[in-house]
Amino acid sequence: MSDGTLNILVLHGPNLNLLGFREPEIYGKTSLDEINQELMRIGRERSVDVKCFQSNHEGQLVDWVHEYRLWADGIILNPGALTHYGLSLLDALLAVKKPVIEVHLSNIYAREEWRRTSVISQACKGIIAGFGKDGYFMALKELIHLLRR
Amino acid sequence: MSDGTLNILVLHGPNLNLLGFREPEIYGKTSLDEINQELMRIGRERSVDVKCFQSNHEGQLVDWVHEYRLWADGIILNPGALTHYGLSLLDALLAVKKPVIEVHLSNIYAREEWRRTSVISQACKGIIAGFGKDGYFMALKELIHLLRR
Amino acid sequence: MSDGTLNILVLHGPNLNLLGFREPEIYGKTSLDEINQELMRIGRERSVDVKCFQSNHEGQLVDWVHEYRLWADGIILNPGALTHYGLSLLDALLAVKKPVIEVHLSNIYAREEWRRTSVISQACKGIIAGFGKDGYFMALKELIHLLRR
Amino acid sequence: MSDGTLNILVLHGPNLNLLGFREPEIYGKTSLDEINQELMRIGRERSVDVKCFQSNHEGQLVDWVHEYRLWADGIILNPGALTHYGLSLLDALLAVKKPVIEVHLSNIYAREEWRRTSVISQACKGIIAGFGKDGYFMALKELIHLLRR
Amino acid sequence: MSDGTLNILVLHGPNLNLLGFREPEIYGKTSLDEINQELMRIGRERSVDVKCFQSNHEGQLVDWVHEYRLWADGIILNPGALTHYGLSLLDALLAVKKPVIEVHLSNIYAREEWRRTSVISQACKGIIAGFGKDGYFMALKELIHLLRR
Amino acid sequence: MSDGTLNILVLHGPNLNLLGFREPEIYGKTSLDEINQELMRIGRERSVDVKCFQSNHEGQLVDWVHEYRLWADGIILNPGALTHYGLSLLDALLAVKKPVIEVHLSNIYAREEWRRTSVISQACKGIIAGFGKDGYFMALKELIHLLRR
Amino acid sequence: MSDGTLNILVLHGPNLNLLGFREPEIYGKTSLDEINQELMRIGRERSVDVKCFQSNHEGQLVDWVHEYRLWADGIILNPGALTHYGLSLLDALLAVKKPVIEVHLSNIYAREEWRRTSVISQACKGIIAGFGKDGYFMALKELIHLLRR
Amino acid sequence: MSDGTLNILVLHGPNLNLLGFREPEIYGKTSLDEINQELMRIGRERSVDVKCFQSNHEGQLVDWVHEYRLWADGIILNPGALTHYGLSLLDALLAVKKPVIEVHLSNIYAREEWRRTSVISQACKGIIAGFGKDGYFMALKELIHLLRR
Amino acid sequence: MSDGTLNILVLHGPNLNLLGFREPEIYGKTSLDEINQELMRIGRERSVDVKCFQSNHEGQLVDWVHEYRLWADGIILNPGALTHYGLSLLDALLAVKKPVIEVHLSNIYAREEWRRTSVISQACKGIIAGFGKDGYFMALKELIHLLRR
Amino acid sequence: MSDGTLNILVLHGPNLNLLGFREPEIYGKTSLDEINQELMRIGRERSVDVKCFQSNHEGQLVDWVHEYRLWADGIILNPGALTHYGLSLLDALLAVKKPVIEVHLSNIYAREEWRRTSVISQACKGIIAGFGKDGYFMALKELIHLLRR
Amino acid sequence: MSDGTLNILVLHGPNLNLLGFREPEIYGKTSLDEINQELMRIGRERSVDVKCFQSNHEGQLVDWVHEYRLWADGIILNPGALTHYGLSLLDALLAVKKPVIEVHLSNIYAREEWRRTSVISQACKGIIAGFGKDGYFMALKELIHLLRR
Amino acid sequence: MSDGTLNILVLHGPNLNLLGFREPEIYGKTSLDEINQELMRIGRERSVDVKCFQSNHEGQLVDWVHEYRLWADGIILNPGALTHYGLSLLDALLAVKKPVIEVHLSNIYAREEWRRTSVISQACKGIIAGFGKDGYFMALKELIHLLRR
Repeated sequence: MSDGTLNILVLHGPNLNLLGFREPEIYGKTSLDEINQELMRIGRERSVDVKCFQSNHEGQLVDWVHEYRLWADGIILNPGALTHYGLSLLDALLAVKKPVIEVHLSNIYAREEWRRTSVISQACKGIIAGFGKDGYFMALKELIHLLRR
Repeated sequence: MSDGTLNILVLHGPNLNLLGFREPEIYGKTSLDEINQELMRIGRERSVDVKCFQSNHEGQLVDWVHEYRLWADGIILNPGALTHYGLSLLDALLAVKKPVIEVHLSNIYAREEWRRTSVISQACKGIIAGFGKDGYFMALKELIHLLRR
Repeated sequence: MSDGTLNILVLHGPNLNLLGFREPEIYGKTSLDEINQELMRIGRERSVDVKCFQSNHEGQLVDWVHEYRLWADGIILNPGALTHYGLSLLDALLAVKKPVIEVHLSNIYAREEWRRTSVISQACKGIIAGFGKDGYFMALKELIHLLRR
Repeated sequence: MSDGTLNILVLHGPNLNLLGFREPEIYGKTSLDEINQELMRIGRERSVDVKCFQSNHEGQLVDWVHEYRLWADGIILNPGALTHYGLSLLDALLAVKKPVIEVHLSNIYAREEWRRTSVISQACKGIIAGFGKDGYFMALKELIHLLRR
Repeated sequence: MSDGTLNILVLHGPNLNLLGFREPEIYGKTSLDEINQELMRIGRERSVDVKCFQSNHEGQLVDWVHEYRLWADGIILNPGALTHYGLSLLDALLAVKKPVIEVHLSNIYAREEWRRTSVISQACKGIIAGFGKDGYFMALKELIHLLRR
Repeated sequence: MSDGTLNILVLHGPNLNLLGFREPEIYGKTSLDEINQELMRIGRERSVDVKCFQSNHEGQLVDWVHEYRLWADGIILNPGALTHYGLSLLDALLAVKKPVIEVHLSNIYAREEWRRTSVISQACKGIIAGFGKDGYFMALKELIHLLRR
Repeated sequence: MSDGTLNILVLHGPNLNLLGFREPEIYGKTSLDEINQELMRIGRERSVDVKCFQSNHEGQLVDWVHEYRLWADGIILNPGALTHYGLSLLDALLAVKKPVIEVHLSNIYAREEWRRTSVISQACKGIIAGFGKDGYFMALKELIHLLRR
Repeated sequence: MSDGTLNILVLHGPNLNLLGFREPEIYGKTSLDEINQELMRIGRERSVDVKCFQSNHEGQLVDWVHEYRLWADGIILNPGALTHYGLSLLDALLAVKKPVIEVHLSNIYAREEWRRTSVISQACKGIIAGFGKDGYFMALKELIHLLRR
Repeated sequence: MSDGTLNILVLHGPNLNLLGFREPEIYGKTSLDEINQELMRIGRERSVDVKCFQSNHEGQLVDWVHEYRLWADGIILNPGALTHYGLSLLDALLAVKKPVIEVHLSNIYAREEWRRTSVISQACKGIIAGFGKDGYFMALKELIHLLRR
Repeated sequence: MSDGTLNILVLHGPNLNLLGFREPEIYGKTSLDEINQELMRIGRERSVDVKCFQSNHEGQLVDWVHEYRLWADGIILNPGALTHYGLSLLDALLAVKKPVIEVHLSNIYAREEWRRTSVISQACKGIIAGFGKDGYFMALKELIHLLRR
Repeated sequence: MSDGTLNILVLHGPNLNLLGFREPEIYGKTSLDEINQELMRIGRERSVDVKCFQSNHEGQLVDWVHEYRLWADGIILNPGALTHYGLSLLDALLAVKKPVIEVHLSNIYAREEWRRTSVISQACKGIIAGFGKDGYFMALKELIHLLRR
Repeated sequence: MSDGTLNILVLHGPNLNLLGFREPEIYGKTSLDEINQELMRIGRERSVDVKCFQSNHEGQLVDWVHEYRLWADGIILNPGALTHYGLSLLDALLAVKKPVIEVHLSNIYAREEWRRTSVISQACKGIIAGFGKDGYFMALKELIHLLRR
């Protein structure tokens, strides 16, 4: 793929709009808006158009995957609790066949039993978990790197 | 039941709006709109009013089941991925007590382990799986036949 | 906590809007609206502001939990079928850290196997199941009692 | 049922005699005797005869269910650890066919895995869990309400 | 495939010879012979040669699959209780590589737990369940349609 | 039922023809023929016609259940290894709706794990296990007693 | 063993004292006392001393097994609900090494899932289930027959 | 055992009659008849009488085990799909107490989950899997070697 | 803790009263009384007051834990078969918060599957299994050592 | 932590020495040595001392964790197949209490069932999977970033 | 492949060095050295170079697979207890892509439950189990035959 | 066995070399060397030769079991994390047939689920868990006592 402008879709699942307000000792003090600003800044530096959305509705996330499936060159997704049962979201990702990176703020594999299973992973190129907001930035830089390789 | 006009509700679950665009070698090249046109044509031929809806939101599908529960004489449902976890949709179908036919484009019982379990089936009169778009037409004809018997 | 005005949020999950119309021999003949009226009446008697909402959309319920998280002193929740898979709703409740009482009309622990597991309970102070509409009234009186203690 | 005198049997299972002495930060400082006094007071106010017993022996609890099966109009039961394996107690309750309310001081559904399963629930009309001693009082008031309806 | 004469093998598994005599309120009053007559009539109308066999022996069904594997263009199979353990029959179907449609009179997916698993499905193009004798006729029409496409 | 002549069908499943020759220290030295002679003698004494059959083919046992379903007033069945997977035989017994007594020579519930589950039991009135050949005689006497009551 | 006087211990587990009063349509109208009378009568006819006890306490049943372990030549046991968890009773039976016959009034193998497992069976020579009170009489006659062989 | 003539029974289970015709890229191009010829040739060279049979009926295989149980000094068995559920065949092999070698054409332990479990193995001296037709020849040579040792 | 007099409670569960009489080749020839004598002798030598009790009733063991909870500085417990299901006994031990040592005569972790799970262990400081009567003496010496440290 | 020199230990588990030679279409063409060179180069650029080791012996990996536990400020670990059973390695990591990043070349959560479970994760701060050799570089940069924060 | 010299690697896993000394009634009296001599003799007869190694260290076995991966044309492996958990060894075999034959002295599929699962099998062409030392010789002859085919 | 010199092998598994340095609040402040010194001192007092080894390599532990199998009269083993998966170590212990005592510093049966299962126990005479370093001393004294009995 050329070094031309890339488009990257960032989707945040249920409850991530509370980021910065909810259990800051675990999830950090940065708000979702600040994370999105930083993601867009990283994108601009690299001539990449980054669009960020959040919803508490699985159906809305599926709608966005469909709506941006032609526009987006890659997707960064933090599915929140849908990680564990969002099979409609999984099917949407499988259908659009774009590289997807699954991001989790905490290391879900070291938490309660039920938080260790992701139904989304089978549609993803890779997974980054446990690095807080940094996980998004690592994902974006790597995704751009992969798409331009 | 008399031969008077029947009303049949057709509901398509998450990701079915992509039909014809997504993996056509598996799901065929016909779009959801064309399928709906054909369903309505078959209905008209038999004096049956057919209404078709699609949504990626489970809640919307539940809303439609409620909204049309007095109008509809029967329901044809392709639940998409909700097949496997849509317990709210199941409860809605159990509540309205109309004959429901569950349709799947592919033979879900021959696919991955998790695709073989349907939580919806217990609310259904019958199941048709594996015949692509034909499954809808078989379901509609049989449902009319059952309701007029 | 003082005896000043309390605010209590009541949330009804999927299919509860059919209450009074659906299987009245099981769920009783009282409509959801009548239950809500009675809850608000009980509240007024005790200088408590009670707000009641119902939705068939999990995302909408999550939105309301977020929207009222500063306003509400406590929450009464009948999750309907989301009881068994509503992990996003669970995360929303865990995030707002208010006392929650889980209410079920029927004794779910004496029904079909899959109805016996609640993913919501771990976010709740207590559970009341099997007393029909009375369960709501018991929950409201107890929640006021707890908050004023 | 008339408004005449009702008889209600209250049974406390193993270890509940330690109430008030054992882990008061969890189970409260009220002794079992004080709870029983309050239950009998509530009963007297409503012309209801309340009898309270505690035993660490499953067989003794079964004996009391048999002994009072004609006298009692309803039963309130906190089975303690028998919740999880007291099948003889279950059979006794199934045999006498009286309305039973299962009470737990803590929310067992939010505790260790093995504490989440109740073999007793299938013989009960309803369940109240997580409200400490209040659970008994809620159960008694509701049981009288149900029996007089 | 041309529109020339097609050959279709219909196999009925154990106990289906009792059809019409056994629990007619569930399985209907039509005998297996009447169903076979109708299947052959539908075939003749469409220039299709339909052969129908029933056996209570799994081995006999396997023999017929072998014997007619060159003759048959497609197979319609109601495996009866072999659905759940007939692995020899499965192997026979896998070996002959013809399109197979699995038919069940009742909706097995809404019945007892053990009736919900089919070991046969992985060898089948599609499944039709819950429509009584109509299921056979739907299967035959669809199979002809598929073979002539 | 009158004291007139009763008809009882005795069916022996796979490998029981080896009785007396196979592991006599476990299964005893009496041959199947001697057991059948004794069963018929007990029958004659009580004006009961007893017919005994053995087969290693599940299909043949199903055929006999069908063939004698009008003639037989009750059935005694030792299913041999079909105990654990003979679902066709189960369906046949469910279809004919006659009282069936399941007999096992050894106490299958005290043997290897896989021998403890019987898929046949749900079609049976009662079970007798662990008494060797005596089990057949106990079953026959009890079945006559039940049918004449 | 000689034809001299035999001693047989009959133990009835929890809730069996309700026999005749509890669900007579299932368990029959005969009281436990009448069954015990009949057992002792059968014993006297055959010069066998039969002692019968019932308790709702597992510990009491264990005590009786110990107390009569030298006196008794064989044991007939209906463990009631202890069938499923009475491991102390199992150990007691294993320790005394007398022939034990396990009796159940109903066919437990055709009832709810949890009633199908017996932890007692591994200590028993044989099992008789599903014949109501007759099961006790069959057991006694067979046990005497075995002991005198 | 002396070097005199040995008798060896070779049994092929369901669908093996299709060998050479079915999926030759997996199972090879040699027909079952050619394999049998080669087995008998190897036998003649070593003064061993080899008899070969195939059936799709489990009951027939059991009959042959019974019929040849005195004649045969050892058995070579490819159970086909009966590997996974042929408990009657297992019982037959356990009863005759001859050395049995279980042969599979493909390496069943590297295939689908359900193909990895053999209920037959517990009656066998050894297992050879994954060597196509060679497996039979290895088995025969080893069995002769063992019997003459 | 000072070197002053210590109080230690020794509890023996169901069937341990048979010690020395039951399967001496496994459990040894020493009676429970002799073990208790030796335990008290070891105690006296070290200025420790040792009280020993045995019961076949779980409720009685719970009663003793309660009764001696102020008196005892530590507990030695051989729960017998209650090891596997005595949840009431577990709750009693958790409530009194004294150091408990769990003793088993045999190595339960090398016996039948169901004997390998102890529900009691979570309330214990340590476990000693497999050393016969010596296990009690090791436990007593270590417990005194721990309490005086 | 100051910006002074950091020390980072990189451990590669079994079979990673084959990197670049083994299945390059999956694991890439870069050898382990080239990856280590790049890791040390990235380290030098940032004044970080990076040491890299590989072993096919779990014990050797444990030895290195011990040996470098005072020297290392953080650890990057690709456990290879030890991911799924290396409990000794897990214990070593838990003991040294340094931040660990778990790296996998492929997305193990989208592979065969048994490859989806990591026993190592509970000792790790975060996980990076599916990015081939890039995963190591992302991990190193992030670990330095975390340690210098 | 030509008839030129072949190279075959024979690997023996943990505890096989005790062969001949350990439980000879099960594993035979032949030492591992004698088996290796015989394997090399068979090789020499057929112009095949056979190298034999044994280790109790999984890592050492992996090292040998790597070291000889270019030299060896095929591998014979008896993994000992690593059969059940040696996933690193499995990965090594999968990486070198040579035909592997898995050999077990005893029939592991007829032993304790946990000995019936092999994690190694999925990397193997075939399996030979239950023939003692002969299994090695059968494997070597067959492997040469396959490689020269 | 005489009172002559005994030889006892003490084996410490993975990570036990860190004892005294790692989580002293859990595992105590005593180093492994101090424990070994004390074990040897206890031995000398009783004319027992005690040899102590530690390794992080399962293979090394197996090697030591083999090397000392003639020398050692008994073995004391703390398998560390190999407790849960060290099947090669298990096989080594089963092969040498010496009395083995399994020691754990903490009460593994009260810790995380996966720490409660020991694959080693089936080769051990007894188990001591939860007494820290004292466990070793108790084991040594008891083992000497057993060997000299």
